[in-house]
Amino acid sequence: MDVDSAIGVFDSGVGGLTVLRALHERLPHEDTIYLGDTARVPYGTRSPATVTRYALGNARFLVERGIKLLVVACNTVSAESLPALREAFDVPVLGVVEPGARAAAARAHGRPVGVIGTPGTIAAGAYQRSLKAIAPELIVTARACPLFVPLAEEGWTDGEVPRLVAEKYLAPFRDERIGTLVLGCTHYPLLAEVIQTALPDTALVDSARATAATVEDELRGRGLLRSSGAAAHEVYVTDLPASFHRVAERFLGRPLAHLEQVDVTV
Amino acid sequence: MDVDSAIGVFDSGVGGLTVLRALHERLPHEDTIYLGDTARVPYGTRSPATVTRYALGNARFLVERGIKLLVVACNTVSAESLPALREAFDVPVLGVVEPGARAAAARAHGRPVGVIGTPGTIAAGAYQRSLKAIAPELIVTARACPLFVPLAEEGWTDGEVPRLVAEKYLAPFRDERIGTLVLGCTHYPLLAEVIQTALPDTALVDSARATAATVEDELRGRGLLRSSGAAAHEVYVTDLPASFHRVAERFLGRPLAHLEQVDVTV
Repeated sequence: MDVDSAIGVFDSGVGGLTVLRALHERLPHEDTIYLGDTARVPYGTRSPATVTRYALGNARFLVERGIKLLVVACNTVSAESLPALREAFDVPVLGVVEPGARAAAARAHGRPVGVIGTPGTIAAGAYQRSLKAIAPELIVTARACPLFVPLAEEGWTDGEVPRLVAEKYLAPFRDERIGTLVLGCTHYPLLAEVIQTALPDTALVDSARATAATVEDELRGRGLLRSSGAAAHEVYVTDLPASFHRVAERFLGRPLAHLEQVDVTV
Repeated sequence: MDVDSAIGVFDSGVGGLTVLRALHERLPHEDTIYLGDTARVPYGTRSPATVTRYALGNARFLVERGIKLLVVACNTVSAESLPALREAFDVPVLGVVEPGARAAAARAHGRPVGVIGTPGTIAAGAYQRSLKAIAPELIVTARACPLFVPLAEEGWTDGEVPRLVAEKYLAPFRDERIGTLVLGCTHYPLLAEVIQTALPDTALVDSARATAATVEDELRGRGLLRSSGAAAHEVYVTDLPASFHRVAERFLGRPLAHLEQVDVTV
């Protein structure tokens, strides 16, 4: 591991590209290698044992490429598999759950905190546990919003359908007068506007940005932060469906440079 | 293969349970073995090579259990992988595409035919090709409806959201004055009411029922139809997420009897 090694990022699919985007914005001099396990997406509906098995395979692919830090952009893996990853590999491993929870707790000001995510993330309860560990007095409520992922991938991010879906999922949070809402799924930043419309008095916490800030702190603390020079970015996927480019560039916010299909199941 | 062997059915997940349900209704004396590849669902967003690899593994699991006929309940596999399955195994293999296309052509009466399905099924074009092969003069238009699957799994099958989503996807078919619409995805029968509301003058063709009728013909033709006695039903899945029971029983229309998790990737 040295300062010129890349940051490795993996996710179950395209969603983690919102985390990669936050890293590029915050750390423009860092090389990145991204792996999207598009052949096995989604993880949110799978059992914890299966999620951990997939996570170990993904991490091995990145670790073998000599990364200096591993970012688990997938909320499901961050909720269920970080101990297994930390045991299996020597590189520092950061998930998206704890940075998101810490940012939410810091902005709660005594009001209840809401968490939204996939059914897997919410059932695993990692955000709820993490928030309670940081601020035991916090009132935390969590809800799964399964339709948000397909809405984001379909590009239906404004208009009547996403507004109604957001209203249906989020109205209970309004009644609970939450002050802060954690977007506990990498896809959800694309729906931030309709979410904010449904909850006009709530501060939204984007786990992707909170994670990028934590990565910066971690690299600086280890003397591994690269502060100048051009950066190279590689994106790998385990399957390449026809729609990948269109969806991926919407999530990443810019064109894909190096893109390659790989097999990580061996 | 003898008359007392079971019918094997596989799908990428729970959706094929609508096909299993149609088989149970039409052929109440037949044993069935169902495999849902819930660890690798969905197939609709994957490349054809990946879909075929998964299909061969699923079929092998069922063939090793001595089935007399294999029903591919998955539209994506039916569209892309039947030749590979027929080459690899000796049992008769039926998909859902051709029965659905034949039923639609028979009811078209000269009006245009619409097809809806997942992006994978529509892009593969198997329904469109099958309809053209059966009735070359037919005008066929096809559209992907990616949100219908999560709506069906979420149980949002009536109310404003599914009505608006159906309206958004299906309005162009109304302008094209289609006479028949093929529900080219196993999940879509659960949304038949909102689909019918959006297209009140269109006859809906349910591929699941059309396939059950074709299975009956095929078994009778081979002298393999079982016409009396109680039937046993086994359901296998490759992963068992927390929501499986609830969703599966809504799709199957009755409680699950024998349910077991298996690994078919070896």
